[in-house]
Amino acid sequence: MMKKEIGIGLLGLGTVGGGVAEVLATKAGSLAEQARLPLVLKKVLERDVSKRYPAELGPNLTTTNPEEVLSHPEVDIVIELIGGEHPATEYMKRAIANGKHVVTANKEVIAKHGYELLSLARKYNVDLRYEASVGSGIPLISPFQQDLAANKISAIRAILNGTTNYILTRMAKEGLEFASTLKQAQELGYAEANPANDIEGIDAAYKLVILSNIAFRAKFVPQDVYCEGIANIAARDFLYAREFGYAIKLLAIAKKDGDKVEMRVHPVFIPQDSQLAKVDGVYNAVEVETDLAGKLVFYGEGAGGLRASSAVIADVLAIARNIYRGVNNVPELRLDRRITVKPVSDVKTRYYLRLNAPDRPGVLAQISKVLGDNSISISSVIQKESDPAAQTAIIVIMTYPAEEKGMQKALKQLKQLPVVNEVSNFIRVEES
Amino acid sequence: MMKKEIGIGLLGLGTVGGGVAEVLATKAGSLAEQARLPLVLKKVLERDVSKRYPAELGPNLTTTNPEEVLSHPEVDIVIELIGGEHPATEYMKRAIANGKHVVTANKEVIAKHGYELLSLARKYNVDLRYEASVGSGIPLISPFQQDLAANKISAIRAILNGTTNYILTRMAKEGLEFASTLKQAQELGYAEANPANDIEGIDAAYKLVILSNIAFRAKFVPQDVYCEGIANIAARDFLYAREFGYAIKLLAIAKKDGDKVEMRVHPVFIPQDSQLAKVDGVYNAVEVETDLAGKLVFYGEGAGGLRASSAVIADVLAIARNIYRGVNNVPELRLDRRITVKPVSDVKTRYYLRLNAPDRPGVLAQISKVLGDNSISISSVIQKESDPAAQTAIIVIMTYPAEEKGMQKALKQLKQLPVVNEVSNFIRVEES
Repeated sequence: MMKKEIGIGLLGLGTVGGGVAEVLATKAGSLAEQARLPLVLKKVLERDVSKRYPAELGPNLTTTNPEEVLSHPEVDIVIELIGGEHPATEYMKRAIANGKHVVTANKEVIAKHGYELLSLARKYNVDLRYEASVGSGIPLISPFQQDLAANKISAIRAILNGTTNYILTRMAKEGLEFASTLKQAQELGYAEANPANDIEGIDAAYKLVILSNIAFRAKFVPQDVYCEGIANIAARDFLYAREFGYAIKLLAIAKKDGDKVEMRVHPVFIPQDSQLAKVDGVYNAVEVETDLAGKLVFYGEGAGGLRASSAVIADVLAIARNIYRGVNNVPELRLDRRITVKPVSDVKTRYYLRLNAPDRPGVLAQISKVLGDNSISISSVIQKESDPAAQTAIIVIMTYPAEEKGMQKALKQLKQLPVVNEVSNFIRVEES
Repeated sequence: MMKKEIGIGLLGLGTVGGGVAEVLATKAGSLAEQARLPLVLKKVLERDVSKRYPAELGPNLTTTNPEEVLSHPEVDIVIELIGGEHPATEYMKRAIANGKHVVTANKEVIAKHGYELLSLARKYNVDLRYEASVGSGIPLISPFQQDLAANKISAIRAILNGTTNYILTRMAKEGLEFASTLKQAQELGYAEANPANDIEGIDAAYKLVILSNIAFRAKFVPQDVYCEGIANIAARDFLYAREFGYAIKLLAIAKKDGDKVEMRVHPVFIPQDSQLAKVDGVYNAVEVETDLAGKLVFYGEGAGGLRASSAVIADVLAIARNIYRGVNNVPELRLDRRITVKPVSDVKTRYYLRLNAPDRPGVLAQISKVLGDNSISISSVIQKESDPAAQTAIIVIMTYPAEEKGMQKALKQLKQLPVVNEVSNFIRVEES
């Protein structure tokens, strides 16, 4: 049966959904030319009937009933842009079971249920694409799957959350503290009213899981990622970082060592002259280490309705071209079953430690002994800003590479040490 | 007919050809799994019979007769890696006419004859892919064609030549002059014995043509690119650039303005804090401005046998998958016939000018008048390093945006001005 058009069903008319609807309308001619068939919006699910949507959408195009999209007979591709785990997961499953191809920007669903959904798509002979789920409009999923296909990927280091990178950039450049910077970011719309998912690294962890599952042919889930947020970072940490030649970034890191993969999201010291250190503001960047192509970096804005619509519509066009050519493309699932998670306790890095201690002789000796007892060697130490009144000093320590489990033990012991008033901060170092 | 393997014919066993042969041998299992069929090297053209090649290639696999590859009955894909315009162009045409798919890393052939070859491939129902021709292992062709398909691209700014970027980086960091840096680069293997193609910007111009033809749906040729090399840049230009907040890079620039596209390769002042200013050494980077995805940067090493083999084999895998699935993929040719070249004389930029003049009153007034007569306004001027013995001074001028044709007229007049000893250098400014 010769198709005359590609029917699109859209779930959600928020920032991204509105952007996609707008682009489908304003670029209809150019998109039809590329797909060889017109892309026609058939039905749009939007629970908020008052929501503004592009004038080009007729009033009878929107519905509050998901079934009208998911089982619409003329819909070939369902675009899921409502976000969140539920009911998006269920909607996608129903769309797939109804034989619809699915395009989504939903990082949470793909990180948590990606393998299940991709298997389901194979079963029902449909495609499931999610380029917009990581890095928004930055091409990542497709380069990882296609362009790097001949490579073994050994490491991913990435700035995957624009909100936290914006906050860290302002703290670094203006000497601000975290709380006030977050507040300003919220006022400017760069951080949400409830910023927990961004600030605590959860959003970045979802995206890291998605990239890692492609890179290492695994089926990791978000719980496999060790996750720490940025709320503990103080303005003075940036000063000390700079003194040692480092910037502070919230990095998502995945590294393969034999059959084990470590995955973690936490603030790091990274060398000031590395490419990732230079990624400022709301920009995202993904650095990937490969055996053939060497080190690559993909850089761009990681959020926004238009940005995401670039990736969503690229996915739609890829599916539309296959429909036109009569090609039945289903997701590939080539699991490497040997792959397991390397626990964070086995990770080895250098550490930055900031302590508050009484300003008197012998203190450093006791601190060094605790570290030494846990096989941690000090590479340099600076005593900072003694407070003569309180007779306290700030002690900043950089260690040589040491195992996380030793460091965690040392931190507990340091906290109990009478000569340590406070372990103020502790940040891992990532030499890229 | 069910295929049992994908037959590969290889032209050339140099740096890239040797890398590809090695990867085909060492990764045979993983590649066969991805392609669903073994990739089997059937015949290799190498005129130099003494050339070392991987032991895995049997002795009867190499030939000095191109026909044995181009019309080998079991070859499905011909990989062209001999480089240069001739006879590579003719070999590719014959391979296509014989019904072979072609993968190439040949920037010169694709820049000069791309449209003709792609048309020929369409005629003979075969695919022609050239991911390795620009940026080596950095994914560029495929992201431009697929991932950015929904976007309008308005500008490309790129560091596309590792040799010149290596030389400029060392000049900037070590205060060296061009000639000695080039000599060292040659000794270290970062520049060829005959470096003209790199140094004069020709290599970068080829790559810019290839990217522009995809981005703007055009059929530009290398002559459409205005081209200037780096041999005129002096150590002191880097000092003055830094004083004004700029770095100096050899950029390849393409910008769309209505239906006109300007394309040029020349040294530029770019802001020190831009992403491209931070690309050092042999690395390449391509910045692309789009309407939907915003500004993206792709970064990585732009040369080397293994790097290129990543892209070549990605192309081979893409074709192999189509063969396996019975999909007849041919190159798309969607020309926008309104597109024309904007002559460099119509380009408007800011300029940096370095002059040598007698150190006496009234000189600057005469220089300003010449510039003013050609509608060029000075934004700042610094008099540098007066030489009391010779009674000369160095005058450094930054202008406001002005048209190239006015500047070229002014330069001629300045050279004839009695109060100007020398127009020592003149560099365009690119504010990204």
